[in-house]
Order: sequence, then C-alpha cells, then structure tokens
Amino acid sequence: MTEQGTLELSLADIRISSLKPDELLVRVEAAPINPSDLGLLLAGAEVGSARVVGTSDRPVMVAPIAEGTLHSLAARVGKSLSVGNEGAGTVVATGSSAEAQTLLGRTVAVAGGSMYSQYRVVHSSLCLPLPPGTSAKEGASSFVNPLTALGMIETMSREGHMGLVNTAAASNLGQMLVKLCLEEGVPLVSIVRRPEQVEQLKSIGAVHVCDSSSPSFTADLIHALKATSATLAFDATGGGKLASQVLTAMEAAANDSEGEYSRYGSTVHKQVYIYGGLDSSPTLLSRNFGFAWGIGGWLLTPFLGSISADTFARLRSRVADGLKTTFASSYTAEISLVGMLEPITIGRYSKQATGEKYLVVPDPE
Amino acid sequence: MTEQGTLELSLADIRISSLKPDELLVRVEAAPINPSDLGLLLAGAEVGSARVVGTSDRPVMVAPIAEGTLHSLAARVGKSLSVGNEGAGTVVATGSSAEAQTLLGRTVAVAGGSMYSQYRVVHSSLCLPLPPGTSAKEGASSFVNPLTALGMIETMSREGHMGLVNTAAASNLGQMLVKLCLEEGVPLVSIVRRPEQVEQLKSIGAVHVCDSSSPSFTADLIHALKATSATLAFDATGGGKLASQVLTAMEAAANDSEGEYSRYGSTVHKQVYIYGGLDSSPTLLSRNFGFAWGIGGWLLTPFLGSISADTFARLRSRVADGLKTTFASSYTAEISLVGMLEPITIGRYSKQATGEKYLVVPDPE
Repeated sequence: MTEQGTLELSLADIRISSLKPDELLVRVEAAPINPSDLGLLLAGAEVGSARVVGTSDRPVMVAPIAEGTLHSLAARVGKSLSVGNEGAGTVVATGSSAEAQTLLGRTVAVAGGSMYSQYRVVHSSLCLPLPPGTSAKEGASSFVNPLTALGMIETMSREGHMGLVNTAAASNLGQMLVKLCLEEGVPLVSIVRRPEQVEQLKSIGAVHVCDSSSPSFTADLIHALKATSATLAFDATGGGKLASQVLTAMEAAANDSEGEYSRYGSTVHKQVYIYGGLDSSPTLLSRNFGFAWGIGGWLLTPFLGSISADTFARLRSRVADGLKTTFASSYTAEISLVGMLEPITIGRYSKQATGEKYLVVPDPE
Repeated sequence: MTEQGTLELSLADIRISSLKPDELLVRVEAAPINPSDLGLLLAGAEVGSARVVGTSDRPVMVAPIAEGTLHSLAARVGKSLSVGNEGAGTVVATGSSAEAQTLLGRTVAVAGGSMYSQYRVVHSSLCLPLPPGTSAKEGASSFVNPLTALGMIETMSREGHMGLVNTAAASNLGQMLVKLCLEEGVPLVSIVRRPEQVEQLKSIGAVHVCDSSSPSFTADLIHALKATSATLAFDATGGGKLASQVLTAMEAAANDSEGEYSRYGSTVHKQVYIYGGLDSSPTLLSRNFGFAWGIGGWLLTPFLGSISADTFARLRSRVADGLKTTFASSYTAEISLVGMLEPITIGRYSKQATGEKYLVVPDPE
C-alpha cells in the first residue's frame, strides 16, 4: 500500500541466504488462492479500476483503495508484504541437521506464508512430507481447508455439541466437510444458496442440505436441526441475517424438544462461529433465540495454537492419508505468478464464487 | 395469555398447603420490578391500549398483543403464570426442620419467583437471612442486581479479562457496579447516554464514563479502553450498533498496544455479553474488529448454576454485608399489588427508564 492510497502488486527478486540447520529450500510448484489470502493480497482495493505499469515480465498492478477502508489499513502503508498461506513443492536443498536432510528430494506441503514464490526457505517443522505418489498439485491445499474441516469437528467435540451446520456449503471446504462428517459419523447440516447445489452435495452423500433461496428454508432448516441436534454452526458468509436465522431455527428445534415455556428461551447453548466474510455487510442479529447463545470469530491459526502437539500430529496424519480422497481439492484454473497480476485474472479469482478455486503454478525460471 | 391473543393480569387467591420440613412461610413486604420481570409480566403486550375490567379490589387488566409476537408466546397460551423474581419479608411460619425453625421471625430476602404476592412458601435454601437492622425494603433487591454485578466480575476473572465495560450504566445496577469495582480494584468503563449521567456516575467515584451521545464518544471510549485494558463488556441494551462500537474500540485500543499490522486483526480476545434488551431492535455488527471476538447472551441463573457452592456462599455473604452501602437500591415509587394492574402505573414501570426503579409493597390483608 502506498501513501497515495493505492495498492501495488508486483514480483520481487529476493536473495536466498544460506540455510540454517533445520531449514529447507523448497521449489514451490503449486499454491492455492484461498479466501483467507485475498485480504492480504488485495486489501479490498477496487480491482475493477486497476491498471498495469512496468514491463511484461515485471508488471506492476496498481489499484485504488476506497477512502473508507484506508484508515483500517494504516499499519500496512509503505510495507512490502509477501502473500500465500500454503502450497507444495520439492525440497531442493537442506540445512545441516539430520532431520532436514532426510527430506531432500521429497515433495512436501508447506504452511508458512509467502508461498506465491518460485522458492521458499522454511523450517522443516512447517512441512508435511506428502505420501509417495502424491504430487505437489495434489498436496497444495493440505493445510487451510483440511485442517479447517477437522478443526470444526474438534471444536464441536471440545465445546460439547453433537452436530454441525456449515454455510456456503458447496465450496471446496464444504464438500470436504460433507465427506469428512460421513466418515466420522458427525451429523451435518449444509446450507447452500442455489437449488443445483443441493443436488451437488447430495450426490457426494450429504444427508441434510438446506437451500437458503427456497421459500421453505426456515422449515427445512428447523427440520434438519431437529434431526441432527446440531447446535454449532460455522458461517463463511458473516454478513446479513444468516447467522441470526440459524440461531432462531436452533432455538425453535430446541424448544420443540424441551416442551416447556421459559421466559428466557431454551437452556440449550447455540453457537455460531464466523470464519469468513463472503458477505461483508453487517451481521444482523434479531435476538429472538433466548439468552443461551454465542457468536464469535473463528480462525484456523489460533485454533491450531490451542490444541496439543499430539492432536496436531493426529490431524496432520489424517490429512496426509486422505489427500486423494476426503481432502482432495479441485481447481477452476491454474495461474502463473505473472498471471496473478493481470486485472482480468484478478477479477476472476477475487470473486470468491462458491466452488471456484484457483491454483498458482509459479513460472519456472 | 388468552387464545384471543390478549394478556390478562389479575390477582388470584391461592390456598397455602401445610409446610414441608424445610419450608418457610414468608410474608412478602417488598419486591422490586426488575427489567427481567417485565417479559413474563407484560409479554410485550400493548399496554397503551389496555383496559380494566372486574371490580375495584379484583381488577383485571386486559391488553392486546401484537400479531407478530404471538407465535413466540404460543407455549404460554391459557397458562396462569405468577411473577416476581425476588423480594423480602418476614418468616411467619416454618416447617419442622431445625434449620427452618431458626429462621422464624427473621427478615429474609428470597429469590424464588412468584414474589408479587402477600405470602410465599419457599424452601429455606432460597432465603438469605438479612443482617439485624436491615428492613425488608432494604433487602428486597438482594439477588438480581447484586449477584449480577458480582457475576460480571466473576466472569471477568474466569475468562481472563482485566477490566470491564458496562452500558446503560446510570441504572441502579450500573451505580452498584461502579461502587463494587472501586472496592474490588477492577478497572471499569461506564457507558451512558446523556451528559448529566456522566456527572452522576463521577459523583459516586466512577473514573471512566463515556457518553454515547457525545461527538467524541469513539475517541473517548478508545482512550478509556486503553487506560483500563478492558476487553469484556456487559451490554444491557442489546440492539443497534453499541456492541459493535465497543468491539471496534477494543480492537483499536489493542492494535495501538500491539503495534504490528496483522491481516486478521489483533490477537486480543474481545467479548460482549448481552444481558438485557432495553433496545429491542436487531444487533448490528460491522465486523471491523478482526476475528478474536465473541458476543453472547448472559443470564444470572445459568451463571449461578455454573459456580461452586462455596463461591455462591461467598457472593451471598458479600451481598448481605453491603446491603446498606455497595448494594443499596433506590426506588422511584412504591406500588401496591392492585396498583400494579393500573394502566397508568404499568405505563410508568414498563418504560425501563434508566435510574427509575419501582418497588411492589403488597397490600396488607
């Protein structure tokens, strides 16, 4: 971000220093663009008004930033920030430690930030060695979505809930969660926004799918919540009335089960965690769901910080075992590093259309 | 509530059965009208359109209920419900147990429901014997407000916060909290809605009072939050933007302290508990406060159910010691049981004007 209130995206040459004992040099071969990358990458800039300066192999994309959002970005001004939460590639050099050296030549997934890059130096503990026969493209999304899906189930257990609700549920993550919940025996209600997405999720085994565009949405949702006893929802949209509608339906389901009138509503605790911001409008809570409720933010990184090393190892190993099945991702298109800076391409990957996902494949040298 | 969609308030003669060993017969001498009583008592009825039928000593108030709220009250239809969360009076008869008999003649505070009554049979464990020299009127509000104020501080400690924010803070409860936090050394930010309330709270020792009607409210609030490190707010209003404004200001205060830019906002957990509904409009969350936040409902009864018997005993004893000082309540007017049914009087006590509080003094036989 510049002091003139614009966003500049460019490629930079970075000198790689010599490796410390536990470090690896990874040649990045694939890195997904997750919704969680877009805030840092695009800073809410008006990419529709972007222009490109610089040369064809070193383009610089320049886009204005709306006056209203400048204040909250003040801490970024003048700082060059690198982007890319996760990716995968080949270990082409290692530090001197024995553990690092065993990884030479291996394909690894990495969650270290700065992954939109040709090469990346990372600590070996940030790498997940992929099972033999798994390519970098297959392993590129080994962290954010798989650990988020697993984290939702861990959170459910830890907080004493019996089932889950997920929104924007036709996404890559939503499909992953459908498969995972079937395997783990976790009752799941998937909320989608279009009729064809109901069929899409049912075709991969989803039992309860509710379409928020349907006139019978409220009744469908209450029915599904009664059938599943789901009292914990993860909401990727964040804005508007959806979180409130989910809490209201959970309250109706709980009151149907409890039977008695209570002036303060049911005693069943109903929780929504907002883990995305597909809808940036304000969250509207109608508060017709008693007093036993909570809404909060949920992020993968603090969640991972809250679990034990044993639990983390168990979750990572679960991901490695399922990369070609439960945790397989599909991509709409592949994009080069130079391609990431093209306004038309930015327009596509910044849309966050449900089910669309893009894979960055760095240009070879 | 009738099947015709009206609310009927009346007095009823109830036969008192013989006392079980641990029961007491209390002559109720004073019972406050708390905001938490009004939902059950008035069911959101249109009291401005009320009429009175029946006789002068057995009036029946009849008021229509808005179409839109009928559905959520379905479980009440046709049921006669008694009202009054707390009160105080004299023990005029006891059951056979030794513990019950020691209370004969004592003035006790009671939190048992159904306290808008001349007499009330209660289990001895629901009574707080008042210290000698404390009248029933002085002890009538021994539970709801004092235990809520103490509960806020307990919740703060339990959840790892260092200071508190309270809204509608010129209320009886808000004044109590100012005094209690001074005694306990808890940093407190009081949010009020009028300039004269700032002076009122400062006159009883409040250090940080912010007026939400002031043009400098946001800056004042951030300043107070930085000074107190308060990251837990209790909001009695519930509706509108206030909870969101508090979270945004907490985030600004946290970012000023943390210094570094983080794409996901500060890592400081910011929490708002809504414990009242003075503003029944939807809660509007702008979500410009990162991901480390939570909002939820907070009610005294579940809170009391979550603490140990030792903690409860400690809190009750703290209340008994401070009934004439820290936990003293003041009342706008006294109302008889018949008076409670008069539409003009209902209009007054149902307003929930900050700082106004009414005391029911049952008519003697």
